[in-house]
Amino acid sequence: MHPETNSLLLQLFMIFVWAKVFGELFERIHLPAVLGEILAGVVLGPFATRLIVPSDTIHSIAEIGAIFLLFTVGLETSPGSLIRVGRVSLRVAVAGIIAPFVLGFAFLHWRHEPTHEAAFIAVAMVATSVGITARVLRDMDVLKSRPAQIILGAAVFDDILGMLVLGVLVSTVSSGGVQWLHLGVVGAEAIGFALFMIFIAPRVVNRLRPRIAHMQTQDAPLVLALALCLGLSVLSTRLGMAAIIGAFFAGLAFADYSHQWNLEPRAQAINQFLSPFFFFSMGSQLDLSVIDRNVLVLSLVLSVIAIFSKIAGSSVALIGESWRNMMKVGVGMTPRGEVALIVALIGLKMQMISQRSYALVIVMTAVTTLLPPPFLRMLFEPSDRPALPDDDTSRITGRIG
Amino acid sequence: MHPETNSLLLQLFMIFVWAKVFGELFERIHLPAVLGEILAGVVLGPFATRLIVPSDTIHSIAEIGAIFLLFTVGLETSPGSLIRVGRVSLRVAVAGIIAPFVLGFAFLHWRHEPTHEAAFIAVAMVATSVGITARVLRDMDVLKSRPAQIILGAAVFDDILGMLVLGVLVSTVSSGGVQWLHLGVVGAEAIGFALFMIFIAPRVVNRLRPRIAHMQTQDAPLVLALALCLGLSVLSTRLGMAAIIGAFFAGLAFADYSHQWNLEPRAQAINQFLSPFFFFSMGSQLDLSVIDRNVLVLSLVLSVIAIFSKIAGSSVALIGESWRNMMKVGVGMTPRGEVALIVALIGLKMQMISQRSYALVIVMTAVTTLLPPPFLRMLFEPSDRPALPDDDTSRITGRIG
Repeated sequence: MHPETNSLLLQLFMIFVWAKVFGELFERIHLPAVLGEILAGVVLGPFATRLIVPSDTIHSIAEIGAIFLLFTVGLETSPGSLIRVGRVSLRVAVAGIIAPFVLGFAFLHWRHEPTHEAAFIAVAMVATSVGITARVLRDMDVLKSRPAQIILGAAVFDDILGMLVLGVLVSTVSSGGVQWLHLGVVGAEAIGFALFMIFIAPRVVNRLRPRIAHMQTQDAPLVLALALCLGLSVLSTRLGMAAIIGAFFAGLAFADYSHQWNLEPRAQAINQFLSPFFFFSMGSQLDLSVIDRNVLVLSLVLSVIAIFSKIAGSSVALIGESWRNMMKVGVGMTPRGEVALIVALIGLKMQMISQRSYALVIVMTAVTTLLPPPFLRMLFEPSDRPALPDDDTSRITGRIG
Repeated sequence: MHPETNSLLLQLFMIFVWAKVFGELFERIHLPAVLGEILAGVVLGPFATRLIVPSDTIHSIAEIGAIFLLFTVGLETSPGSLIRVGRVSLRVAVAGIIAPFVLGFAFLHWRHEPTHEAAFIAVAMVATSVGITARVLRDMDVLKSRPAQIILGAAVFDDILGMLVLGVLVSTVSSGGVQWLHLGVVGAEAIGFALFMIFIAPRVVNRLRPRIAHMQTQDAPLVLALALCLGLSVLSTRLGMAAIIGAFFAGLAFADYSHQWNLEPRAQAINQFLSPFFFFSMGSQLDLSVIDRNVLVLSLVLSVIAIFSKIAGSSVALIGESWRNMMKVGVGMTPRGEVALIVALIGLKMQMISQRSYALVIVMTAVTTLLPPPFLRMLFEPSDRPALPDDDTSRITGRIG
């Protein structure tokens, strides 16, 4: 093999191993592995020790990793449950998007941040990463409780709406400034795409099942799902949205047959291989030198706003429920995760946000992810445990930890 | 996402879909899918229609694909069976390597080909791809017969020996000419590495099992296997061998626990995603304009030598067996596959062989892969079917089709 491949292989090996070592250490002190993988990139990357300076090829592989990450999330999200979980979850999701976006944007605007930076950071404050919450709730065996169900449904809508907002933002920014007609077109495209992918695409896949069964290609369902994942990623970028949105919907289209075709563990395997490069690459792009006292204070204030706004938004949506249920849902919706980080990374890549704003989002994500677990353990009670075994809702819970 | 990623995504999508479409069409006319995927690269690539001109990133992803291809082959090869199948298979493998190499090299030398080109082509003529054979024999339900068992064992040794010969060749060529001391050192390193990986590494993995079970990382066995795959690939190149050799041995080290840890379908999924890029990239590097009448005739003569030498070698190794058994094993060992193609591609990348020689190997691989199946169906008889159901040897049969 030629020398270039050798150094690529060496980088792949080093990044994979270090990301996993940091992840393992984080897991051992009961912190999310994903934060460890990002920290590996920060510590070993070009802005700190300079031990591993990822090449362009690594960054490309990292972006393919982001695509498979969202593809897997889609695969674990049942479109049927999404439709059934219904109004309460949708209300929580919408309120939980509007409150952080408006409060975050208003605060940053008041602090005289440039409008597009404020918009990107505010969008990053929107999307809930339910993985951490689902893991805590599963460990406590309270996943079937009403608040848990609301959280799981809302988190899914949250992802979709968050990604649509991101799509609109990216498209607006890349066309240079807010153009209302353009914004309307992209918004309509995004919503149309989402509705098609939630209501129609799963039926198309269902209809095609006999044909898929007759295909000669080995592992035909997996091959088709991968092809759709790549195809919709391309289509999303053509529609002016982020590629990950298409990947998510590709997963969603196959979600109902994920079990039958054994897709989830196999998509997860591709994910296991590729996602460390994504998180490492993400960490490696964080310039530590921008984190001074000012940035630290600002990011902590933003974290407080992110936490408060989610709880407030959820509570407004849940008026009529008990105070304790409002808190359970609000705290459960608090963690920000992959989507926030992806939004920030896209902003950085498009040169729409500065290194400083990128650092703000990463610190905000870390704080909102680290704080909720102990409070969730306090809020949920033994009475939230199921009286009867029931497996109906386990399908929408398997998010990334 | 930035425009570069967009075009990367578009290329990934186009290549994946076209490779699979060609593969599906080939399967439908009962030809190996892999030949279809290569043909897609030839037809759509830069030397023909120029519809898809793979970028450097695609070629890098293709080489990672080759690594996972051999990793999966290793994972499907039980080191225990390898040791047990024993002397007959080893004899067939050794004779089946020496005969094609010596005859191929002698013929090309006589035709005044440059020494290093002759050596690369001769090495490409060595390694059996048992996937096709195994599939035909499985369809006929004669996998448990003595000739089938000899074939499967010999094909595995063949791979290992073929890759060791490749390692020695690459290292010799890259150090500029045959240096006997260097050759000896690399040969010893290669054999030492192989012996360590066959006899010691699986025991090390066995010993580490309790520790692996205690790891907090999600899917720890898969993560470790992937890390070892990347690590040994790097190590192989450092020892002066091809990266794929390390990848193969990494798979072999985990093969005994592949079932318990559900590694094989998950490694296969990574393979399903990456290998189309490898085969497409391979096809896209075939310059059709070099295939004139002369090259066509020469490649057909080489194919005849490749077929005859495997049958002759196997027969010599099987003296004492019936003529029909000799033929069964000889014909079964005839198909050349991935390894031949990888050898040729490495030669092309190192600029050690010309486009013309690359074309020779591709045609030879196609011919030796397409011819054997009908003859195998003629040679094997109903009496080769098992009297009793027995699942002992299915472990070394699951090669790639």
